This record gives sequence, C-alpha cells and structure tokens, in this order.
Amino acid sequence: MSIDYLQGKIRKLKNPTMLGLDPYLPILPQHIVKDAFAQYGQTTQAAAQAYYRFCTELMDALVEEVPAVKIQSACFEALGGEGVVQMQRLAKYAKDLGYYVLIDSSRGDVGNIAEIYAQAMFGTVSIGETAHEVFSCDALTVNCYLGSDGVKPFLPYCKDNGKNIFLILKTSNKSSREVQDLLSGDRVIYTAMADLAMRWSTGLFGQNGYSEIGAVVGATFPQTMKLIREKYDRLFFLVPGYGAQGGTAKNVQAAFDRFGHGAIVTASRSIICAWQKTGSDGTDFANHALAAARKMKSDISKFVVIL
Amino acid sequence: MSIDYLQGKIRKLKNPTMLGLDPYLPILPQHIVKDAFAQYGQTTQAAAQAYYRFCTELMDALVEEVPAVKIQSACFEALGGEGVVQMQRLAKYAKDLGYYVLIDSSRGDVGNIAEIYAQAMFGTVSIGETAHEVFSCDALTVNCYLGSDGVKPFLPYCKDNGKNIFLILKTSNKSSREVQDLLSGDRVIYTAMADLAMRWSTGLFGQNGYSEIGAVVGATFPQTMKLIREKYDRLFFLVPGYGAQGGTAKNVQAAFDRFGHGAIVTASRSIICAWQKTGSDGTDFANHALAAARKMKSDISKFVVIL
Repeated sequence: MSIDYLQGKIRKLKNPTMLGLDPYLPILPQHIVKDAFAQYGQTTQAAAQAYYRFCTELMDALVEEVPAVKIQSACFEALGGEGVVQMQRLAKYAKDLGYYVLIDSSRGDVGNIAEIYAQAMFGTVSIGETAHEVFSCDALTVNCYLGSDGVKPFLPYCKDNGKNIFLILKTSNKSSREVQDLLSGDRVIYTAMADLAMRWSTGLFGQNGYSEIGAVVGATFPQTMKLIREKYDRLFFLVPGYGAQGGTAKNVQAAFDRFGHGAIVTASRSIICAWQKTGSDGTDFANHALAAARKMKSDISKFVVIL
Repeated sequence: MSIDYLQGKIRKLKNPTMLGLDPYLPILPQHIVKDAFAQYGQTTQAAAQAYYRFCTELMDALVEEVPAVKIQSACFEALGGEGVVQMQRLAKYAKDLGYYVLIDSSRGDVGNIAEIYAQAMFGTVSIGETAHEVFSCDALTVNCYLGSDGVKPFLPYCKDNGKNIFLILKTSNKSSREVQDLLSGDRVIYTAMADLAMRWSTGLFGQNGYSEIGAVVGATFPQTMKLIREKYDRLFFLVPGYGAQGGTAKNVQAAFDRFGHGAIVTASRSIICAWQKTGSDGTDFANHALAAARKMKSDISKFVVIL
C-alpha cells in the first residue's frame, strides 16, 4: 500500500499509532479461552482459534481509530502450523477491514532464501500453473545484519507493489546498546545501518518524501531518536517500546517531523491487555482496548500535531 | 542433545557435515511434484507434502553418513500453515532417525517474544493443563543484533535441556562485510558478537570444552575464519557457504581445532540438487545426494582429520 498510503491513513484518522497483536494464552480473556477449549480441546488448534478471535474482535473495535496493525509472527509460529494458518487468516481479515498490515517477523535471511520469503509475504507463490497469495501484508520488519543480500530481494516489491520493509536499526530493549551502539569511525552501528537504508532507498521515495524502506527506532531512547530523526529525515520510523516498555508520548515526539509526519508508534500490551487493569472479567476487553487506544492517541496528540 | 552429543556424533561417523534442507518447488524432482499435484492439486498443501517427501527420502538415504540436518524454516513458512505443519513433522522424523536437528530461522526477537519462541522450539507450550511439543529440534540459529535480551530466553534450555543456539557472527554472503566487518575500537562487529557469545557462555561449556552457544561463520572467508578460530577456541562453528556458494574443503579447514573438532559444515544445494547435474530424471535423487555427501566427506577429510 506504500508509505504514502500509510501516511495518508494516519493523517485521515489523525492517529500515528499501530495496534500490536502479540497474543498468547495467559493474556487472553477467560471466556475466549474457555470457548476455544470447549470446541477444540486443549490443543494448539484451540489456542490458535482463540488468538484469531481475540485479534479480530480487537481489530473490529479499533478500526475507526487506528490506521495500522502489527502482527507478531513468533506468537503464531509458536503454535506451529495451526498458528500460522490463523495468522494468514488474520492478516487477510485486517486487510479486508482496511488496516495497513505489518508482519513482525524480524528475520534476516539472504539470497535465495530471502527471495522465497519475500515472494510469500509480498507476492504470490507459484505452484504449478497457479499463483497463491500466502500472506496478505503491506510491510515486514527485516533484520539487516547480513547486509544488502538480505534486503535486495524485498526491493522490487517496495518499488512496484507498494510494499514496505522496516529495517531494525535501534531497538527499544535495554541491551540494544551492546551491538547497535558500538562506535565505528564517526558512526555508531545503527547509523551505519541507516546509511545503508538510505543507499537502498535510491528510487524508492514516496510523494511525501519518505522512503518505502522504513526504520525501527525504539521509543525508549528519546535522545537517540532525536539525533536519528534529524540526520535521516527521509526514513519513516516504526517506533516500538511505547507503554509497557516505558516509552511515553513525550518520548516519541522526536520521531516525527515538523508536520507531525514520518513515524508511527506501536503499542501492544498497553492496549490489548488494558482490560486486565480494570478489574474486568475480560468480556469487555475490546472496549477497554478502544479506550486505551483513544487515550494513547490523545496523549500523543499533546506532543505531535499532524498537519 | 548438547554440543557434546553433536561432536560425539560427528566423531562416530567421521563426518563433520550437516545436510541442509532448503526445499522449494523448482528444485524438486518432477516425479515428486507430479505425485503431490495428483493427490492434492496445485495447492500449498501439495507443495508442502512434496517438500516432506523429498526431505524424508533424503534423510533416509543419508542417515548412516551424515550426523545432522539443518531445516530452512523460511522455505516452509513460505507455504503458510501447511508448510509449517510439514516442517514440524519433518523435524520429528529427523529426530526419530537420530539426526541432530537444527532449525534455521535466523530470527532476532527480544524479551517476552523470544521467550515464547524459545519455549515452542526447545520446550513445550502449555495449553490449559496440557503440554504440547510443537517443534522437535536440538538447535536454532539466532540473530543477536538486539543483544542479550534476544539471547537470554534461550540460555536455560542450553543449560538444562541440552539445546544449542548458533549466533550469527560472520555470514558467507558477499555483503556480510557491510555491517559485520565494521571496525569498532580494536574489534570488528563480528568479534564483538563473539565476545558477547563468550560472555553468555558462562557455565555453559560441554565436556569437550566447547560452549553450548555456537557461532555461524561462513566458509567463504577463510582468513577471517582462521582468525576467529584462534581467538575463540571454545565456540563451536556452524559453517555455511560450502559448495554452491563457493566455500571449498580447503577453506573450511581453518574452522576446526587440531583434533578436527569444533565445527560442522553445512551444505544444501550441492547435495540435495546433485541429481540435476547428472542428466538424471530425478527418480534417483537420493542416491545422487548420498554420493555427493560422501564426496563432501571425503573432500573435507583430506584437510581435516577427526581424532
């Protein structure tokens, strides 16, 4: 759908946030788990069906407020094939609702293997004379520790099919400094990655000036974010670490340009588990998620005005 | 099964190689594809079943020669849930045959998400009161660009359950230098990663002296390999890049210690596609794979003597 589409959707809803879907059984409302166990027993299928229901009900509730969703691939993969089947359905459901859909798989393959993966995620897989759409998504996170060979297979889809990749530059976790902050000449490693992102972006800029290749920059290091924003003013930022991980509305301000463009903030637990802090039995989890998403939007709007 | 088990198996078979299973339709023998299409139509299920058959027949043929297999997760994920179901079956089949089984997924998640993934890969997933073994594997590749937070969730399994992780240090692809070779102080990034690997290895050494945390070091940079081997003499190396990518038996010599221990060389295309270079129609692909595996063993044995 392209970076212009994402920015357009953010402007329309005046909401630069992305719903993070990281389901796992201990955080699901009891009624959903109970229903799934009743139908499928205590199986991976039951868990996968429960994830699907939980996530679709969240997406239904938030569709007028939130422009994009981030599906955490590992949560579904952890249930094996049953989980991945539901992830495929979920991505399609999200697309049909009109969300911009990012699959967060944080992989770093190269060459032929990266090509196979890119094709399945962004294109179609040829089986005999038939073409199969396996996953329906607009964007992927990509770990580019392996360099250009891991990124190039995705670029034709960014150029011709309106797909985006978000390169993992500077993550929100505490230990991100161990490798990402190492100094190399006058750069640190995450700026070396950003330089590569700019190199790979040649011919890949949207009408809004941003590259179809974005960057993951955590909300938990606001000074770092400010520096990267200033230096790399054409990389769209995907900002994790808001809420549960400690990133605040004030912290994320630096991710945006002076028009309030150029970034989207993801939040998962603080939205999808909002019901747990209310004494609710979980049956109204989607309402609590909606309230939390509205509060997040409102909190961010105090620091970011989207023109 | 632990790094001691892997080394023991290598010594027993006198073969420090790992069979790489990277199936995709264009490289499969026609009779397998045809049979699968006849049974399941031109579907992802057909492709997944064809992958399973291709890989199990290869494993059957090589089981007396080759101690370990590497399953390329992306190939199966690219078929969606159907593919992952067959990957689960395949890993179990490999374990039952007695192979040391590595799943090559090259992911880099952190915290809670890495924990969920580690549990599914190395432990059991709790669903209600039941525990499910989702994947049966001995080892995983892990991208540790995110630092300790991405590695720590795997360590209890390395310590207590005999599992191994292989951290991606220096890969065999050409562009690996773009990030991995950046100089930082008196180190390059891949040695900074190796230093971290040694730090994480505290309390995790096998009886053979090697850490349960291994390292991926490509066969295509023999000088680099020599330097890393000398400096990090307690990291077991997983060596990709042999054969199709240009690594030779002479190149990989430097990966081994003076007892011929401490490394395993992976090869995929040069083994599993060996039949394509023979004018064969593919019906005897497993025999050609066996011949290629024996040749690889013999070639390496000219440079590496396993005591």
